[in-house]
Amino acid sequence: MLHAVIMAGGSGTRFWPESRDLRPKQLLKLFGQRTMIQATVDRLGDLAPPERILIATNAKLASAMAEQLPELPPAAILGEPHKRDTAPCIGLAAICVSRHDPDATMVVMPADHVIGPDEAFQDAIEFAASLVEDEPGRIVTFGIRPTYPAEIFGYIERGEPLAPQADGRPASFQVRQFREKPKADVARQYLESGSFYWNSGIFVWKAATIMQALAHHQPVMYAHLERIAAAYETPQFEEELQREFEAIKGVSIDFAVMEHARDIVVIEAPYDWDDVGSWQALARLYGADDHGNTILGKHVGVHTKGTIVRGPDDHLIVTLGLTDCVVVHTPDATLVANKHDEESIREVVKLLQEKGWREYL
Amino acid sequence: MLHAVIMAGGSGTRFWPESRDLRPKQLLKLFGQRTMIQATVDRLGDLAPPERILIATNAKLASAMAEQLPELPPAAILGEPHKRDTAPCIGLAAICVSRHDPDATMVVMPADHVIGPDEAFQDAIEFAASLVEDEPGRIVTFGIRPTYPAEIFGYIERGEPLAPQADGRPASFQVRQFREKPKADVARQYLESGSFYWNSGIFVWKAATIMQALAHHQPVMYAHLERIAAAYETPQFEEELQREFEAIKGVSIDFAVMEHARDIVVIEAPYDWDDVGSWQALARLYGADDHGNTILGKHVGVHTKGTIVRGPDDHLIVTLGLTDCVVVHTPDATLVANKHDEESIREVVKLLQEKGWREYL
Repeated sequence: MLHAVIMAGGSGTRFWPESRDLRPKQLLKLFGQRTMIQATVDRLGDLAPPERILIATNAKLASAMAEQLPELPPAAILGEPHKRDTAPCIGLAAICVSRHDPDATMVVMPADHVIGPDEAFQDAIEFAASLVEDEPGRIVTFGIRPTYPAEIFGYIERGEPLAPQADGRPASFQVRQFREKPKADVARQYLESGSFYWNSGIFVWKAATIMQALAHHQPVMYAHLERIAAAYETPQFEEELQREFEAIKGVSIDFAVMEHARDIVVIEAPYDWDDVGSWQALARLYGADDHGNTILGKHVGVHTKGTIVRGPDDHLIVTLGLTDCVVVHTPDATLVANKHDEESIREVVKLLQEKGWREYL
Repeated sequence: MLHAVIMAGGSGTRFWPESRDLRPKQLLKLFGQRTMIQATVDRLGDLAPPERILIATNAKLASAMAEQLPELPPAAILGEPHKRDTAPCIGLAAICVSRHDPDATMVVMPADHVIGPDEAFQDAIEFAASLVEDEPGRIVTFGIRPTYPAEIFGYIERGEPLAPQADGRPASFQVRQFREKPKADVARQYLESGSFYWNSGIFVWKAATIMQALAHHQPVMYAHLERIAAAYETPQFEEELQREFEAIKGVSIDFAVMEHARDIVVIEAPYDWDDVGSWQALARLYGADDHGNTILGKHVGVHTKGTIVRGPDDHLIVTLGLTDCVVVHTPDATLVANKHDEESIREVVKLLQEKGWREYL
């Protein structure tokens, strides 16, 4: 049966001041009327009922997640006691899933991407699951056709077509190799070659397959995960989880497994996808007016171009003579940034920590 | 005796969003712990006691003025029913003053300039008053040594020295001519010539002198003022003031009188002066840090240069990659402007009127 594992542990630094430590991106309504985690669960439709959905998140976010997802049983929220990147997170989720369903097929997906339409996504996952049923040891990934030479994504190089593309089915290929985030010139080569996809971090596999892969490629990590698994659903679970998860070295699933594994298939994603990586995503998701501005909230602008404004309906933001800026207003903090310097938001978070201004983190 | 007339009718468009229709610049604390009108009254020191101070302002600002100046008697606040520029305002004030003291000497000064130190100002006014006592028909003005070729001020060209400069006294000259705000190239010539001053709008004269000058150069205006004067301190005053003041054509004292009058003396101001004409004044008044930033309020900046930030202590403003901007935060509105496009704030006020967003005006 298909189980959905939603990775929802990200911290929301890039969406400061709206995102904070306890209110990261996945808990925000950045697009539409639902928060990103809610939209991600909604997107599953009939693929997986609530009892086959697992939210892998940070322990300190667990209660907020549960509040936003009242349709899920309490056990569906798996709170990790420490941040350890995606490989341990996926390993732990695979343990939980396979305990209840040893033959489980898992779809693993991030909670903070915008994907649509939902039907196209569901069809694609079903297709991926059928490929896994065909070859149970197989790993299926989704590749996004690159539209510019991005340096912020990992890439997947495709090899031979898996089979002639069937009517109404997305194209699928053997994976030649996974590639880490490239430098600009390499990213341009990838784009020009036409055979590279962005790695969207969505995977479909048997829970048993990824556990075997972790056991093989990451034996130390796997030993910790096995000790956690031994305590699963016993009174000692929390204590074991705390101790063993802390001892794990954080590493991404790409680095831990994908760059070494064989028989990986990439499906060319037949849905729209956006990683919503920074405030600039608002311009892509909501579009821009004739002056290139994306305005969400109460605003008056004069000589303003290429600018993103986001504020509440009860606070007026006025911009004069601004080009390529981002202005975000929240009740206790306002960000004014050059669009091309958004990365510096990380420095701001550091400065806030240094100043001890915890209330803004 | 010396009477002080403070012109406090200005609207505060340029300091939006802090200034509003009913809370213009002169009612704000833009510099120091006192509002600008309070600082202007304070600056008079012993020159004029409360009963010889007149605040000429807009009728709708009268109660706010009275609240900020509890030391003044109620009659000290003269509320004009219509905006008619400085000449009618000064004429009306001269009527009020000379009714109680026909031989009155008046100092006329704006409420929205920063001037200091107070002692230097007081000494300069006393010197000006002594020059008026020497020649009762004389008009005395103060000229500010220009520091750049400003196009936003009127200029005063000086002629011959009035007398050899006495020890501890400021230099004084006959005025050759008053000049309207010049274009850039003319402003540069003025600056280079060394014989032009900025007209700071501060005057000392006998009330009788300016009334005669208005009667001579502006007979139509003077006729209206005489009808108001005839009703002064009668029950009909308010009604007469309403009707006659409305009928007056608004005109500045420079245009109405100064450009035509003879025997005008200019004193080189021996005090520091700033017209506080826009948010950029904060950088002059408070200075700037090593990055050219002037920060008033709670702020964190990264890659921020030449920027002015003004906000409260309980709202954090973060700036990233900004150069030469102005950010002003108030509870219901935030301004983000390019420093070189501050003039456009006038367009914003128009847009707010068009949208019917009166609550922000």
